Amino acid sequence: ENILESEPIVYRRITVPHNVSKEFCTLNPKNVHQRPTVALLCGPHVKGAQGISCGRHLANHDVQVILFLPNFVKMLESITNELSLFSKTQGQQVSSLKDLPTSPVDLVINCLDCPENVFLRDQPWYKAAVAWANQNRAPVLSIDPPVHEVEQGIDAKWSLALGLPLPLGEHAGRIYLCDIGIPQQVFQEVGINYHSPFGCKFVIPLHSA
Amino acid sequence: ENILESEPIVYRRITVPHNVSKEFCTLNPKNVHQRPTVALLCGPHVKGAQGISCGRHLANHDVQVILFLPNFVKMLESITNELSLFSKTQGQQVSSLKDLPTSPVDLVINCLDCPENVFLRDQPWYKAAVAWANQNRAPVLSIDPPVHEVEQGIDAKWSLALGLPLPLGEHAGRIYLCDIGIPQQVFQEVGINYHSPFGCKFVIPLHSA
Repeated sequence: ENILESEPIVYRRITVPHNVSKEFCTLNPKNVHQRPTVALLCGPHVKGAQGISCGRHLANHDVQVILFLPNFVKMLESITNELSLFSKTQGQQVSSLKDLPTSPVDLVINCLDCPENVFLRDQPWYKAAVAWANQNRAPVLSIDPPVHEVEQGIDAKWSLALGLPLPLGEHAGRIYLCDIGIPQQVFQEVGINYHSPFGCKFVIPLHSA
Repeated sequence: ENILESEPIVYRRITVPHNVSKEFCTLNPKNVHQRPTVALLCGPHVKGAQGISCGRHLANHDVQVILFLPNFVKMLESITNELSLFSKTQGQQVSSLKDLPTSPVDLVINCLDCPENVFLRDQPWYKAAVAWANQNRAPVLSIDPPVHEVEQGIDAKWSLALGLPLPLGEHAGRIYLCDIGIPQQVFQEVGINYHSPFGCKFVIPLHSA
């Protein structure tokens, strides 16, 4: 979805120096005797469903996961499917921000945004989630954050961009790009001169080392 | 789907010695001046659709992919979706085994099988694909191969089992287990005493090093 630009743009090959051995970091809890705690903030859209799936995998790998998802009468099928799987982990689901921890968690994963619906950001639950994340002093990983941070958004330590990078600002932190498998011809069809920057990898850092 | 045993079974923690640095291998073409060639054999089922997705990612990463998929009048939606994406790569699709290379390719990926439908193996295209793979001298990676190899199947160098290992025989080669994110409670509900063997990994070898 990132590539649907109305004007043809030229995408240059990205070459960035990076230390392969440090590409991924491990989630270390503040107290080594505890399991690490991740707060997962999800909006009611496909990106939120992908976040819930991520939460299930983390819970399966011994992370304590607290999922915030606002209450909606009608949920997407992808959300209800993922919720039903998540409910079979030891992860916890809350629909009120008051039920999120007040003390800092080890990591916040931000899946609140959906590029196709910017109006979500006007909703009270969205604003409250942003306020909660910014007052909790945990580092934030944002998944596919939006371009324009005109209004207050969540300050991320890392952001994962999908397919092509958006011109993200300082709020996005260190930016990583994830290969979501868009074929060459799709780029051609929308007028993007694309050379894959991924080599044999599926996630690459776009910031300097 | 591997866990739907009619009798409760006990699953012991798997601990296997392995050398992390050698867990994954790189696809090196026989002739270093050429792109590596992968022949992908897919059946007309969800596992086949997953194989086509794998083929798209390989093609995006500069592998020459030749996909064999038998002709069917009515295809699953997941197959047609994946085919439409695959068709936008430089990968090639054939429906006749005569159009597969006669000289050895660099790797054969076998997604012919589907645990839910063992009758596929009686079909002429299945038998012909097995014969082609066994006469082509390329190493074979089998995805989720079936348990009983009463009839002649494809001799794999490696097999990827999903979720839980099946009692695979020698035909399966070196066996790897892939974490597909089944939550703890699902195992409990079907009477399996399960402790995740994955640690921080998503693919682990089950053979000794």
